[in-house]
Amino acid sequence: MKLGTVLVLGTGLVGTSIGLALRQRGVTVLLADRDLGAVRLAREMGAGQEWHSGDPVDLAVVAVPPAHVATELRGLQQRDTARFYTDVASVKVRPLARAAELGCDLGSYLASHPMAGREKAGPGAARADLFLGRPWALCPTEETLPGTRAAVLELIELCGANPVEVSAEEHDEAVAVVSHAPHVAASAVAARLAEAPEAALGLAGQGVRDVTRVAGGDPGLWLGILSGNAAPVAAVLEAVSRDLAEAATALRALAGGDESAGPEVTQLLKRGVAGHGRIPGKHGGPAARYGVVQVVIGDRPGQLARLFQVCEEVGVNVEDVRLEHAPGLPLGLAELSVQPDAAPVLARALHERGWQVPETP
Amino acid sequence: MKLGTVLVLGTGLVGTSIGLALRQRGVTVLLADRDLGAVRLAREMGAGQEWHSGDPVDLAVVAVPPAHVATELRGLQQRDTARFYTDVASVKVRPLARAAELGCDLGSYLASHPMAGREKAGPGAARADLFLGRPWALCPTEETLPGTRAAVLELIELCGANPVEVSAEEHDEAVAVVSHAPHVAASAVAARLAEAPEAALGLAGQGVRDVTRVAGGDPGLWLGILSGNAAPVAAVLEAVSRDLAEAATALRALAGGDESAGPEVTQLLKRGVAGHGRIPGKHGGPAARYGVVQVVIGDRPGQLARLFQVCEEVGVNVEDVRLEHAPGLPLGLAELSVQPDAAPVLARALHERGWQVPETP
Repeated sequence: MKLGTVLVLGTGLVGTSIGLALRQRGVTVLLADRDLGAVRLAREMGAGQEWHSGDPVDLAVVAVPPAHVATELRGLQQRDTARFYTDVASVKVRPLARAAELGCDLGSYLASHPMAGREKAGPGAARADLFLGRPWALCPTEETLPGTRAAVLELIELCGANPVEVSAEEHDEAVAVVSHAPHVAASAVAARLAEAPEAALGLAGQGVRDVTRVAGGDPGLWLGILSGNAAPVAAVLEAVSRDLAEAATALRALAGGDESAGPEVTQLLKRGVAGHGRIPGKHGGPAARYGVVQVVIGDRPGQLARLFQVCEEVGVNVEDVRLEHAPGLPLGLAELSVQPDAAPVLARALHERGWQVPETP
Repeated sequence: MKLGTVLVLGTGLVGTSIGLALRQRGVTVLLADRDLGAVRLAREMGAGQEWHSGDPVDLAVVAVPPAHVATELRGLQQRDTARFYTDVASVKVRPLARAAELGCDLGSYLASHPMAGREKAGPGAARADLFLGRPWALCPTEETLPGTRAAVLELIELCGANPVEVSAEEHDEAVAVVSHAPHVAASAVAARLAEAPEAALGLAGQGVRDVTRVAGGDPGLWLGILSGNAAPVAAVLEAVSRDLAEAATALRALAGGDESAGPEVTQLLKRGVAGHGRIPGKHGGPAARYGVVQVVIGDRPGQLARLFQVCEEVGVNVEDVRLEHAPGLPLGLAELSVQPDAAPVLARALHERGWQVPETP
């Protein structure tokens, strides 16, 4: 089918962003929210027009908090508002069960969840490209009709996202392990920095910056996310907590001279290496092993342009770039990740053009 | 003083890198190691010349594992090898205590530790710029003579690093909290990914990638690091483990409908925000709040060069850059961090030149 008209019920960050994305693709978008100010702002941002309850639509997107998904869905279905329905809540098991309890039609409804967000909330933070290249989970059941699935897949495609089919249970357990629990773990590591003496912070390197980056997120928003998926997140955190307690016990034994505790620590580190290696690479495949070229750069405009100019001249595509500035110095290092074959080519080209490329034996 | 001749005892990654850095600054470097092959490789890499025991030097850098620092120091001091001595081990309390026990001269010895490393080990992985802009801890005691301190500060300056004075106890507790324990926590989070179903990995976003990046490090190397600082690391891990267990308990209560457990979770998240905010910015000051400009880029050579060309044209300095590729799509997002004032300037300039710059309301 071709989605001609879509209703977005709930013009928060995600709903408004869907409106913006669909408008860019020429879809007619109708907007509704209990908060009339939010609808107005979404409309002014170009996310669509205000909905008048009578208008029939092809697809209704229920973009409200998990606890309200089922009741809103029932209301829309009772008025026969749309041919197909979906929602975008960050939790799937409970809303789906509640929808069944309320007697919703589960043939025309397919639960989904775009894996995208921002630290800011509300329609004012919405962006047409919020979903670009992100995974978007959809959770079909045995009752889901083929037309419903096609309509939701078209929505995902129009938003530029990457559909991932999972069951509701798989979804909730997956986001617990790849998003919710890692967030809490990062918070617990960062909480130690809150108590640490100033001098300790002065020794902080890139590692702890990466581990704790997500811990900067809004606590209120995250309490909502964690509450909605509380049991699966708790299960992951219990396992992480247990591993860390066991590592601490082993390290206490090592501190006391009992070398036999070493293998237990190594075992946890090895499991970490294995898990880290399973994270898919940027293009959806297994994590690629890039070659890394390091180059010393000056901390002033123009240096990066010249650097990437050289990459272009030699036809090398930069897959990733990391800048490491030198605290207190006007110099830094750029780490360019490129295809393994291209690394020596690029290093040589940069060296020949006078760039300081650290020895890579 | 001016360091004319430096002895590096132990030509592993750190020792050889110090040799390379000092050679670039015109210092005469003498190399020694029990492993004659390692000395030869370090020499061939340009890190200095082989040491003949008789040669007197200005500064001796003991670059051996923590357990051997004190005995090597005593040997060098007994032969009156150098005017001043330091070491570069990743742990400070135990080697210092052992040196005192062995009757080493603690006036001419100042323990230090460059906060730099690589996942690769050995002289073959050494680089002259390994220490560029990195913190380098030094741990003076009441016995440290001013000349010793000056010589070690000169070493740090010659290597391009940033001196940070702390006591040995402060050092060991600091690296436990900013480096060693975060590594183990990242491993424990990544270990969950090792057990997770394939579909869960398909929903992985940038957050879990950042949290677990360091977990890819070599387990053998890290067991050595953790063992050498076992008690302080254990203390941090115990606190993290306790926080996560309490969060899990609170989430279990929330899952059971007990809303009163919410504030406990929020409290941990807030402590995480506070700790995250204390990590210093790139130039050693407090974490700067950069403006972020996002721009859609094509995944092919030349796009980044053109992007940074625009930054140069409008005189905007890019403080940091993050590339986010779209899995399965030839498009991605570049996030450029710039001074807050410069963000709207750059966004407008890019937009005017036809770049897709997402709406930033």
